[in-house]
Amino acid sequence: MDRIKDAIRTIPDYPKPGIMFRDVTTLLGDAGAFRAAVDAMVQPHAGKKIDKVAGIEARGFILGGAVAHQLSVGFVPVRKKGKLPWQTIGQSYELEYGVDEVEIHVDAVEKGERVLVVDDLIATGGTAEAAILLLRQAGAEVVGCSFVIDLPELGGARRLEKLGVKVASLVAFEGE
Amino acid sequence: MDRIKDAIRTIPDYPKPGIMFRDVTTLLGDAGAFRAAVDAMVQPHAGKKIDKVAGIEARGFILGGAVAHQLSVGFVPVRKKGKLPWQTIGQSYELEYGVDEVEIHVDAVEKGERVLVVDDLIATGGTAEAAILLLRQAGAEVVGCSFVIDLPELGGARRLEKLGVKVASLVAFEGE
Repeated sequence: MDRIKDAIRTIPDYPKPGIMFRDVTTLLGDAGAFRAAVDAMVQPHAGKKIDKVAGIEARGFILGGAVAHQLSVGFVPVRKKGKLPWQTIGQSYELEYGVDEVEIHVDAVEKGERVLVVDDLIATGGTAEAAILLLRQAGAEVVGCSFVIDLPELGGARRLEKLGVKVASLVAFEGE
Repeated sequence: MDRIKDAIRTIPDYPKPGIMFRDVTTLLGDAGAFRAAVDAMVQPHAGKKIDKVAGIEARGFILGGAVAHQLSVGFVPVRKKGKLPWQTIGQSYELEYGVDEVEIHVDAVEKGERVLVVDDLIATGGTAEAAILLLRQAGAEVVGCSFVIDLPELGGARRLEKLGVKVASLVAFEGE
């Protein structure tokens, strides 16, 4: 995964002092690294039946669109509140200060459909957890989650595993 | 293109009375229609060298991610102002009431790179025009644009063609 890790840009003190921001746009712009990342996000779930990929707004749309294309399945956008045009169901989650909410269309999945959740990065796992709960509420079975980047110190992967979901990530950044 | 058109949901009076909103989420969720759309977005530009796909936030991220994967090239996000973490260049465009701005990273493209611009829909073409000007400012050559939906009454395709860019769309909705 060195090729993938090397393609990620680290921006110190963004969006605020002390934060090392992991920027995947450099990876996305690198044809070989992008393709390798998509392959590696699919691989841990090989052999499972997957009916749809759910991508979390906004960078999860880019990776999720590519992963859905790779698997030849449909795509479900998990969007921030108020962005979807049809009837929605929502799930709130806690931020450091305050609460946010993600939504899917009520008909985004059919009962029993098997869904892979995709995003660029897992930190505390709050958004991904909300996405999983929302997809389950809509009748889907979440067969796994794939992220490019894990920040293990923030515990997101453990949080999702407690929900019984297999979590895969390609690279980890710890105190670097 | 009947399969693609049939997979698009029309929502009357959204986001305001009198507007027929064309909702591509139903197309994205339909594995066959999604794949057919990606193929058909690539086809008009076949034979051209393409180095990168630029997708316009947010639905253009989903389609653009898939098109980039299909072409095995890198992806450039064209984002709303203030969303990109690194140094950016921006281009403003007029809305019905007011002005908006899109941005790319200063290093999103290399000089001379050949870029295909992707979004779900072209209406007046303001955002796509801004994306084209921005990519040119960064040194790229825009080899074409692909949209799923054209609203020809709003003149967006003609506007982009005046910039010398080949514009392809899969389906058109006129006064329906």
